[in-house]
Amino acid sequence: MPWYQLDDANDPKLDQLAKQYNLHPLHIEDARNQDESVKVDTTSIYTFAVFKPVRLVPDPDNPGEQMPTFSPIDIFAGKDFLITISDPTCPTSEQALARARRDGDDEHPGKLLSLILDTIVDLYFPAIDHFDDRIDQLEDKVFDDPSPEILQSVFAIKRELIDLRRVLVNTRDASLHLQRDPDTIIDAEHQPYMRDTYDHVARLLDSVETQRDLLNNTLDIYLSSVSNRTNEVMKVLTVLGTIVLPVLAISGIYGMNLKGLPFEDSPHGAEWVALVTVIATAILLYALRKMKWL
Amino acid sequence: MPWYQLDDANDPKLDQLAKQYNLHPLHIEDARNQDESVKVDTTSIYTFAVFKPVRLVPDPDNPGEQMPTFSPIDIFAGKDFLITISDPTCPTSEQALARARRDGDDEHPGKLLSLILDTIVDLYFPAIDHFDDRIDQLEDKVFDDPSPEILQSVFAIKRELIDLRRVLVNTRDASLHLQRDPDTIIDAEHQPYMRDTYDHVARLLDSVETQRDLLNNTLDIYLSSVSNRTNEVMKVLTVLGTIVLPVLAISGIYGMNLKGLPFEDSPHGAEWVALVTVIATAILLYALRKMKWL
Amino acid sequence: MPWYQLDDANDPKLDQLAKQYNLHPLHIEDARNQDESVKVDTTSIYTFAVFKPVRLVPDPDNPGEQMPTFSPIDIFAGKDFLITISDPTCPTSEQALARARRDGDDEHPGKLLSLILDTIVDLYFPAIDHFDDRIDQLEDKVFDDPSPEILQSVFAIKRELIDLRRVLVNTRDASLHLQRDPDTIIDAEHQPYMRDTYDHVARLLDSVETQRDLLNNTLDIYLSSVSNRTNEVMKVLTVLGTIVLPVLAISGIYGMNLKGLPFEDSPHGAEWVALVTVIATAILLYALRKMKWL
Amino acid sequence: MPWYQLDDANDPKLDQLAKQYNLHPLHIEDARNQDESVKVDTTSIYTFAVFKPVRLVPDPDNPGEQMPTFSPIDIFAGKDFLITISDPTCPTSEQALARARRDGDDEHPGKLLSLILDTIVDLYFPAIDHFDDRIDQLEDKVFDDPSPEILQSVFAIKRELIDLRRVLVNTRDASLHLQRDPDTIIDAEHQPYMRDTYDHVARLLDSVETQRDLLNNTLDIYLSSVSNRTNEVMKVLTVLGTIVLPVLAISGIYGMNLKGLPFEDSPHGAEWVALVTVIATAILLYALRKMKWL
Amino acid sequence: MPWYQLDDANDPKLDQLAKQYNLHPLHIEDARNQDESVKVDTTSIYTFAVFKPVRLVPDPDNPGEQMPTFSPIDIFAGKDFLITISDPTCPTSEQALARARRDGDDEHPGKLLSLILDTIVDLYFPAIDHFDDRIDQLEDKVFDDPSPEILQSVFAIKRELIDLRRVLVNTRDASLHLQRDPDTIIDAEHQPYMRDTYDHVARLLDSVETQRDLLNNTLDIYLSSVSNRTNEVMKVLTVLGTIVLPVLAISGIYGMNLKGLPFEDSPHGAEWVALVTVIATAILLYALRKMKWL
Repeated sequence: MPWYQLDDANDPKLDQLAKQYNLHPLHIEDARNQDESVKVDTTSIYTFAVFKPVRLVPDPDNPGEQMPTFSPIDIFAGKDFLITISDPTCPTSEQALARARRDGDDEHPGKLLSLILDTIVDLYFPAIDHFDDRIDQLEDKVFDDPSPEILQSVFAIKRELIDLRRVLVNTRDASLHLQRDPDTIIDAEHQPYMRDTYDHVARLLDSVETQRDLLNNTLDIYLSSVSNRTNEVMKVLTVLGTIVLPVLAISGIYGMNLKGLPFEDSPHGAEWVALVTVIATAILLYALRKMKWL
Repeated sequence: MPWYQLDDANDPKLDQLAKQYNLHPLHIEDARNQDESVKVDTTSIYTFAVFKPVRLVPDPDNPGEQMPTFSPIDIFAGKDFLITISDPTCPTSEQALARARRDGDDEHPGKLLSLILDTIVDLYFPAIDHFDDRIDQLEDKVFDDPSPEILQSVFAIKRELIDLRRVLVNTRDASLHLQRDPDTIIDAEHQPYMRDTYDHVARLLDSVETQRDLLNNTLDIYLSSVSNRTNEVMKVLTVLGTIVLPVLAISGIYGMNLKGLPFEDSPHGAEWVALVTVIATAILLYALRKMKWL
Repeated sequence: MPWYQLDDANDPKLDQLAKQYNLHPLHIEDARNQDESVKVDTTSIYTFAVFKPVRLVPDPDNPGEQMPTFSPIDIFAGKDFLITISDPTCPTSEQALARARRDGDDEHPGKLLSLILDTIVDLYFPAIDHFDDRIDQLEDKVFDDPSPEILQSVFAIKRELIDLRRVLVNTRDASLHLQRDPDTIIDAEHQPYMRDTYDHVARLLDSVETQRDLLNNTLDIYLSSVSNRTNEVMKVLTVLGTIVLPVLAISGIYGMNLKGLPFEDSPHGAEWVALVTVIATAILLYALRKMKWL
Repeated sequence: MPWYQLDDANDPKLDQLAKQYNLHPLHIEDARNQDESVKVDTTSIYTFAVFKPVRLVPDPDNPGEQMPTFSPIDIFAGKDFLITISDPTCPTSEQALARARRDGDDEHPGKLLSLILDTIVDLYFPAIDHFDDRIDQLEDKVFDDPSPEILQSVFAIKRELIDLRRVLVNTRDASLHLQRDPDTIIDAEHQPYMRDTYDHVARLLDSVETQRDLLNNTLDIYLSSVSNRTNEVMKVLTVLGTIVLPVLAISGIYGMNLKGLPFEDSPHGAEWVALVTVIATAILLYALRKMKWL
Repeated sequence: MPWYQLDDANDPKLDQLAKQYNLHPLHIEDARNQDESVKVDTTSIYTFAVFKPVRLVPDPDNPGEQMPTFSPIDIFAGKDFLITISDPTCPTSEQALARARRDGDDEHPGKLLSLILDTIVDLYFPAIDHFDDRIDQLEDKVFDDPSPEILQSVFAIKRELIDLRRVLVNTRDASLHLQRDPDTIIDAEHQPYMRDTYDHVARLLDSVETQRDLLNNTLDIYLSSVSNRTNEVMKVLTVLGTIVLPVLAISGIYGMNLKGLPFEDSPHGAEWVALVTVIATAILLYALRKMKWL
């Protein structure tokens, strides 16, 4: 059985193969569209699949951090031919194709397809683990030091999870289609592996949901920490204001160029006024505490 | 096969056609109602469809910005006639009709209908891309400068997305109806194109959901930035207050017209008092930092 | 075919009719319960329906505003009789009954029922338009002047929409029941009208959902405006505090009854100190701006 | 037909009846578990039902207020026997049993069961009305005086509604089971009453949903009132600060022991300085209003 | 019938049993993966099940507190063999196996499986009760003293509930699978027990949902308490500022080295000025109260 591997969907070789194997023009168009989402489409003569293997690349916005990126792989699996179109610079696609070549069987394109999908799905786990690590770090930091950088990371991960979740939901639907479709290319013998793949995608989606919950928790912690801190700062201001008010008021009074103030001419005036000031401050602080304001 | 194109549903020609082809009065009423939503209704003799092509027009409220607007197109597709009612000033409708005329086939009104719908759906993508660009711009700005203008843009886009989503949901239901209805006018040969159209609408809806998530993120970022800034401003106030309190208190004390203050008569009184003030300020700042209030 | 119209469900005539036409005691109880929700119940001999026509009445809490109110209409439609119970002071019910009398047909109680329901549903549109207008007004005002009155209006409309939505959901279920029930009183010929009514209710519900979204937007705008303003006010306080601090500190220092202050005896002391104060204020403001605090 | 009424599930009589009528050990265990939730279980020989009648009791935490409480009632309804286990101190259960005895029919245990369930469901309405009253009171108070006590009441009602909703959902499922189960003990003649009961539970649940929406509204109103008030208080502070700043600054300047201040020696110095101060304050207030800060 | 109990899935004995009983390699792989989620998989020759018994262990982060932890138990139940793999240090697993040994029947592996699952499910209740207690404590504390430690506990419990809910949802699906699967190993006689187990898991999930609602309430109470307190503190600041402003302003004025101030030379100047100050303060406070600012 021939297996054609193309590095680029714009390769004119694809047009030639489309003619030879009667590939539907819409599928060719899909393969050449970089934005096409994950899907499986079964015709009477072949199965067309688009998957999106993930890999971690350095994040240009956060030096030292990694972010997931996707490069599509397109597969046309007929009864007696297999065409794969994958970017040779994507290590995940390469690993999937290599495993299919090693463990696959030339006579079963369905098995090859299921092996490729299985490897792609298995390689989503490191991406999920990567998010787990980053979220754990954020959770540890957010209680100690709720800085705006944490917020920025929370929203960056949220955005990446939105993309990852979309790919995973479509991958789950695709693997369900490969199980349930009456004309599926996967024969009964390989269905347990397909079910296993489906279970893995379901578990991945479960993890993404949990991560979204955890990120929302982190966001709530951040916001409540900020409002807590504002509250604390306000209290400091109030305590400071309270401590200093009697001093300011009393010293202001004795700074007036007026006659008739008590202790005005006493040689221990300063001591008496200091005593009054300390007592006034103490009463004020005690009153605030009593009224549960502090 | 005759194809009647009317520019306006109020054209008396429509009443004449209604009589000739037995069009249901409810459909005529729908066609004349500018608010009618997207739908497909199949009777035993013809299919009535309302679609809402989108186009971008300058936004009167935001000079320099564009906003999507919809003009309905009504289609009566019988076995041997086609009636289309579309606003000739809408370039999207014009493009859809032009493509149907070019690629269609006079003997297959179903194919004409599917070509029109396909073009209309394809032309939703520029509107989505337009929102993507605007949301990207907002996200870039919101971290640097969370101004109320950003908020206004976020809510304006949210409102436009509510409208767009409603049109897309109805378009998805309409294209599903054209696939699944047992009396559908689309014959088996053209069903793959209809499925492709359905996939495109589903992808568009997916994008709208993602954009809503992103807008909510932007809103959360904005709100947390504002409460962050309030917190920062409070801290500045507190630090300023803390720095200046000892100066105010001590200078107030020495401004009193009283006797008995220390250093009162010392020729270096000012130096001593300055030293005490600096030390008091330092102790206060150190205490605040120690208590994690700063 | 006899058509009995009662103005009040407590009319003893109803008991007499119940005996004559074998009406189920539970339905009589329902008709006499003012709180009964919208529903349709089909027995082997007649169809019992409760609808809730809406009308706009002046709002006692907001002079100059209107609010929707509902008065139930109960219908017993048998094969050869029709009993309607409706409040004669409700113009919507009166309009529905008048249209049924004009366009209906004595031999088809099902058609009469569908005409009544259709008119009732059509008259929900003015209520929806009323909400649209009020929400538009609120949206225009909330950006310019986020006053607590706007908040009160938002919550009042939310409360009214909760009621309206409940009535519409039940009306939708009732009209679905009249379409799908195998023993429905609506014959095949009138089913397109019933489908049209169902479409209208679905569109009304759609509008209510959109209005809830818009109200939530308005609420979010209000809340973010308030926190924005708090933030602005804080900044004013800080700027004012910053401008005045050097003046207060320096004038306090020179107000002390101490010796050894610089420029103490200079004839241009005031000028020198003023210069120092202005420079100190400028440095402070510059520092705050530099640290992005202002 | 014998009807056994036990006051306590721990009565040894129950073990004896279990033996005599072949009751399943799991059902006996359920009847003895005070936490068992509402359910209906149909075996080939009898139907086991657990219901939770509600009654209002004085709330220990809020003197003068009432709160709903539930006491389970267990029913074993066979073809020729009925066993009921109910707390004789619960007036709701007593009322349900009394009505079943009065209106029921010894030969139809199904009718007895449906009468008991119907009475229990009817007696949920006073509990719902009780919540309606309390929520109305809270809504009236929250705009005038958003005190923390209102918050406490909102959360207390939320908690009670969570419990009530859980009981109602299970009661709805139980009544559906009694309608739909092919082996149901309720015969065709009594099904309309069972449907009526089901409608009532559905309406009760509807009301609980509405009450949750209203409570969330009240909570939103409370929170926005608090942030509004904070904003108002901030403005007062700012206005006060603005009014007093020029006085403080200018009086500080003229309190300095320096030479060279204008008007220093003028006999009308105080008047001139007062004029300058008033003008400075007016300019400041005008500037703030101009910049829309006030 | 042989029953093999292994303490560790990495025991080479498992490979030998896999060979002997034809166990699927994917199941062996699952058993050896510590992260595998709860599931039941039925093949034509045996049923493979993974459960996650819970136990409470001391929480390393909160001394004195306990947290739930899960250790998987794997079961291969064939027609004539049973293989269980469970951690011998987990008391829950040990209890489940002990009860199966005591009450089970060597000839019915299905009964053994259902007994093990039933015990595992029963032992989730103490974990739920544990959360109930902790949430009750938090609710009591949050109104009196909304400290950040409460927040930390709320988020810690939220996180633990996310995990517990995931395990329970999968356990519910597994027990449903054991009821509904046409090839289920549980025979008709033991199905009531399986239904009972399913009911228990459903009730547990119900409790988890309620606990999530209660935690969200607690979080809302916390956040509204903090914003309430901020508001209170602001008011204290404003009241303090208001009380002291007239004193500061008037004493500042009389501290000026200027001529022409009223009462300047009066022997009772101080008394007059004090009177003016007190009156000014009273007017200010009255005005604030009048304008509903306080």
